[in-house]
Amino acid sequence: MDFDSQVHAIGWDDDALVLLDQRALPGVVTHLRCESVSQVASAIRDMVVRGAPAIGVSAVYGAVLSVRDRAGDAGLDAHNRAAIERDLTQLAQARPTAVNLAWAVKAVRRTLDEEPVRPLAAVSELARRMHAADTAANRRMGELGAALIDEPCEVITHCNAGALATTGYGTALGVIRCAHAQGKIQRVLADETRPWFQGARLTAWELVQDQIPVALIADGAATWAMRQGKVKWVIVGADRVAANGDVANKIGTYSLAISARHHGVGFMVVAPLSTIDLQCPDGAAIPIEQRSAEELLMMHGKPHAAAGAGAWNPVFDVTPAALVDVLVTEAGVVHRPDPGTIRALFPAIPETSRG
Amino acid sequence: MDFDSQVHAIGWDDDALVLLDQRALPGVVTHLRCESVSQVASAIRDMVVRGAPAIGVSAVYGAVLSVRDRAGDAGLDAHNRAAIERDLTQLAQARPTAVNLAWAVKAVRRTLDEEPVRPLAAVSELARRMHAADTAANRRMGELGAALIDEPCEVITHCNAGALATTGYGTALGVIRCAHAQGKIQRVLADETRPWFQGARLTAWELVQDQIPVALIADGAATWAMRQGKVKWVIVGADRVAANGDVANKIGTYSLAISARHHGVGFMVVAPLSTIDLQCPDGAAIPIEQRSAEELLMMHGKPHAAAGAGAWNPVFDVTPAALVDVLVTEAGVVHRPDPGTIRALFPAIPETSRG
Repeated sequence: MDFDSQVHAIGWDDDALVLLDQRALPGVVTHLRCESVSQVASAIRDMVVRGAPAIGVSAVYGAVLSVRDRAGDAGLDAHNRAAIERDLTQLAQARPTAVNLAWAVKAVRRTLDEEPVRPLAAVSELARRMHAADTAANRRMGELGAALIDEPCEVITHCNAGALATTGYGTALGVIRCAHAQGKIQRVLADETRPWFQGARLTAWELVQDQIPVALIADGAATWAMRQGKVKWVIVGADRVAANGDVANKIGTYSLAISARHHGVGFMVVAPLSTIDLQCPDGAAIPIEQRSAEELLMMHGKPHAAAGAGAWNPVFDVTPAALVDVLVTEAGVVHRPDPGTIRALFPAIPETSRG
Repeated sequence: MDFDSQVHAIGWDDDALVLLDQRALPGVVTHLRCESVSQVASAIRDMVVRGAPAIGVSAVYGAVLSVRDRAGDAGLDAHNRAAIERDLTQLAQARPTAVNLAWAVKAVRRTLDEEPVRPLAAVSELARRMHAADTAANRRMGELGAALIDEPCEVITHCNAGALATTGYGTALGVIRCAHAQGKIQRVLADETRPWFQGARLTAWELVQDQIPVALIADGAATWAMRQGKVKWVIVGADRVAANGDVANKIGTYSLAISARHHGVGFMVVAPLSTIDLQCPDGAAIPIEQRSAEELLMMHGKPHAAAGAGAWNPVFDVTPAALVDVLVTEAGVVHRPDPGTIRALFPAIPETSRG
């Protein structure tokens, strides 16, 4: 078991992907053992695991289970390759907005193409490498983002872009962890983040465990908090960054970006290269997941709003690049991102290999 | 009993103030009978009744109960006047932000000063008159506001500024009711309005009863809805409008105003004259109620966020006058309000009588 603390969303114990069940937090800390690729796809769809980097790495482990079950230790043939492909499609379709899922599945396909004789070993190695690379990227982004904060201040974060959304440490919360260690964070104002309450249930839990001062706020209170003058940065993760720097992230992020600009508060997006989709020209091309109306109309399984009311429940929105003050990646920091500066983050990668 | 439908927040049956218990909606329609001024003050504080106009009129009925219990049919003397004054102070302090409460208490004091011989009859008459005037004002504001909407469109509203927040018809929802009857409302997007869920529980319920199409949205989704291009107006009520046109309203309103301006969406505030506080020079002088952290940390009486997390729970914010496109009152419509245009709404009232 790879776990060394409760704040690891993802573990692997040779036979199965073990996920911290984020639906039960913060009340109950329990793990779900996924022994098949279908179980992994369901866990992603049902938000046992969530957060763009975490679902990307989970999908690669799902692919390991697929290759094990379809090919075992044998090589690929037309039959098992087709079965694996169906599994990969199932994984890729589990959630539409985060590009890390598609990115992970494409990496698996490349590996299968390159290693048809020993696919299980190759995909297993890919999973280990991507898992370790994500954690390392988070640490690096934490340092780069924290360096941008030049005085002790309050910061606002939205949703959960923490250890729970990644393989460890976190993207936005990685920056906050690092900046807090440097004495720069007086308090984190965590949007509770309706409808799924990631801020209330996950971000507050993570920050309390690290003894970082955190105050929950209603999503509608973030702009008023900026007005009080202590907030210097809004720090968020991303589910997909388009080639022009437009950012898809949890619903509510776009509003924060407009309010931050209005108040002269910095707007920082923290996302690994795996979240940047060079094939996606701009935000208009990013699919926005609509989830069930029941997430708004029901509460704890009971009707919460009047029968007969509808709901509109997009769970992501797109913040135009023009509202992003800084994009922090493990390859460097981009101020006011645009197509040129985004592309320059990938100097060593030929255009065709990111597809 | 004055009730002719379930959508009356306030009724009077000679012996008691009867309030629709808004804490139980939409699941249970039940009424709370207040037979003493202390019960009325508690009902306001505990949000059995809420909404600036509704709590103003409730307070006057509370004063009727005070005069009845302290003076009966007798005249005022130093002793019973002092007891009534203590009751009025209790009412005025029940909630700090909505000025209607202070306005109502001041109207009672004036009436007591003017009618010391027959205070019960005079305050009872004041209550009936203010009750009727509020309903009439809502109807008039509905017409004036609806006339500003010039094409069928979607509108966003926040919190509940409806029949439940007034003596009937509503302020923001009065405009929506009237505009809907004129064929101008394709759909109302109702912010669910954390932390008290007034939108989910109250606004959706009211609109469903009137067969006005309503879709609930997470508070964080309102700005993204504006981006889709169908929303032409944000229509909200107010808890206090300062002399310069700054508007205190439910937390989240300020964010809507900034986003509306960013998208060229109209921002309409609908408030009776009783909500305008000429003694309050600007928004900085408006007290902002902070409610219990438990409204964010608990859900249905159970811990909802990690133990150890704090919360910041201001339940109102202030929108600067510069972000208000139009203020609708029963005395007329003011575009881009400022101290002069606000003052001009009160031509017949000498300065000293509004204090």
